[in-house]
Amino acid sequence: MALARSGIELRCLCIGTHSNFIHPKLIQNVRLIQSGPHCQNVEVIATLQNGRELCLEPTAPWVKRIIKAILDK
Amino acid sequence: MALARSGIELRCLCIGTHSNFIHPKLIQNVRLIQSGPHCQNVEVIATLQNGRELCLEPTAPWVKRIIKAILDK
Repeated sequence: MALARSGIELRCLCIGTHSNFIHPKLIQNVRLIQSGPHCQNVEVIATLQNGRELCLEPTAPWVKRIIKAILDK
Repeated sequence: MALARSGIELRCLCIGTHSNFIHPKLIQNVRLIQSGPHCQNVEVIATLQNGRELCLEPTAPWVKRIIKAILDK
């Protein structure tokens, strides 16, 4: 849910994940950030049409479905 | 393949797509940008570990597999 702000990503950006379904139409873009030395978690950050950014849970089935829906559009 | 640079995205960012397989290990993050008034295409932009950015073809099966691999990690 919450998103820590940093110019260069030297640590995890997400300090929690949003758990409710978001319709793909409300999403402007999605960033998938691989785990690595900066952060042990894969991070999924959605930017909504209103500019708000939300961290999503990469393992949640609805998150996978949304990403698939964007790719299949 | 090529990526047009713009601060605010008022048009398509990709002017082509990279067609060869890239190992997920080489990818730092992937951005999925929905189509919209700014661009009629869904755009998939991978940032490699070396900082290079590549546009990928959203409909390519290997691109979908890479995204799935990142999410399932």
